[in-house]
Amino acid sequence: MTYTLVLLRHGESEWNALNLFTGWVDVHLTDKGIAEGKRAGELLAERGILPDIVYTSLLRRAIGTANLALDAADRHWIPVVRDWRLNERHYGALQGKNKAQVRDQYGDDQFMLWRRSYDTPPPLIDPADEYSQDADPRYADIEVPRTECLLDVVKRMVPYWESTISKDLLAGKTVLVAAHGNSLRALVKHLDGISDEDIAGLNIPTGIPLRYELDEQLRPVRPAEYLDPEAAAAGAAAVANQGGGK
Amino acid sequence: MTYTLVLLRHGESEWNALNLFTGWVDVHLTDKGIAEGKRAGELLAERGILPDIVYTSLLRRAIGTANLALDAADRHWIPVVRDWRLNERHYGALQGKNKAQVRDQYGDDQFMLWRRSYDTPPPLIDPADEYSQDADPRYADIEVPRTECLLDVVKRMVPYWESTISKDLLAGKTVLVAAHGNSLRALVKHLDGISDEDIAGLNIPTGIPLRYELDEQLRPVRPAEYLDPEAAAAGAAAVANQGGGK
Repeated sequence: MTYTLVLLRHGESEWNALNLFTGWVDVHLTDKGIAEGKRAGELLAERGILPDIVYTSLLRRAIGTANLALDAADRHWIPVVRDWRLNERHYGALQGKNKAQVRDQYGDDQFMLWRRSYDTPPPLIDPADEYSQDADPRYADIEVPRTECLLDVVKRMVPYWESTISKDLLAGKTVLVAAHGNSLRALVKHLDGISDEDIAGLNIPTGIPLRYELDEQLRPVRPAEYLDPEAAAAGAAAVANQGGGK
Repeated sequence: MTYTLVLLRHGESEWNALNLFTGWVDVHLTDKGIAEGKRAGELLAERGILPDIVYTSLLRRAIGTANLALDAADRHWIPVVRDWRLNERHYGALQGKNKAQVRDQYGDDQFMLWRRSYDTPPPLIDPADEYSQDADPRYADIEVPRTECLLDVVKRMVPYWESTISKDLLAGKTVLVAAHGNSLRALVKHLDGISDEDIAGLNIPTGIPLRYELDEQLRPVRPAEYLDPEAAAAGAAAVANQGGGK
């Protein structure tokens, strides 16, 4: 018996397209992102991978991507669970800032440290900043982060995986997780046993389902597979190069 | 203390536009229906009516309308519950048939009996009919109806209201129910104490939020209110006239 888990990073957002740090800012998908969501659902349907339940973050780019993909796969009717623990990494004071400008201002080393260091968070966001989530009603019941490093995301994502998502898998359900570059990197790090150092080199492309087959200890029985490997390779390279352009 | 319940019939579907009996057939929204969904969310936001949880049927016209409305109201992140008990009335052998043709073939009296009788269902659909839901995986755990009258819908909708939806209201949550002409008529009949005879004359327009304020016994403290009364009156008249055109 193996268990099927599908990870899906949201399609291109307006701030991906503008090369801005996004984090917990709740931006819309672009037309390209909408097309990516639909295509993700077509890939699932073509391969006969039919989710029984979907988990999403509380951010509309992941929620919308899940809605589009599930509608295209004729699985729009499955149960939905939304949780803030699947949110993107909070980018602190960098939220809303242009990636290329930050790199130019602070230099390549600091830029890459903020983007890819495992345990160095960006500076804290001011609660009064227009891109802070301190007053957002969806987070009324939690202490909203003011910045996060990837380790912080691991600390919220992995316990949620263990307490909640994994239960549905072990009950035999095919699970779709529609989330973000860094919340999915946190989960992939855990599933694949990637070291704190090596995770820096892992980039997840937008909009391409990543399929895991897991054993009864929820360890991968073989390497995870992107349902469109060519597009995934190109997409991962594009993520790695962010901040290099514009 | 009063409790806020918002009922929302899905926007125009492709089969509304084609004047076909739809029932449990899972058709898409039209562009007009998509616009209605967004407008519904704008009406909620303008009035400051912010759902804390949304219930939908298992049909994409209601699911999509809820998604569009909640996104427009910036409430796309609230918890979602989907249940077949909110589905449209199953129209039996009439599913997929043109309303005007059915009226011409069977006469006005039979046509109105099937559409508006409280306890006379249309003929049973053949399980092999292309518009039967016998093989649909989303209903694998239930006995799929082969036809329903409004009384049958009341018998599934009202117990679900009492066991489930009402619990969220009594916990103080603002509840959005995104569903269908007849599942909402069943609920309105119950809430407003409408007789089996008088419910025949009640038509619910597409895409316009209907707001109830309920007391602690979940009885309306005043008549329910459409958030766009003029559009609602025109929409209800259009529903009443279906089958009269084309």
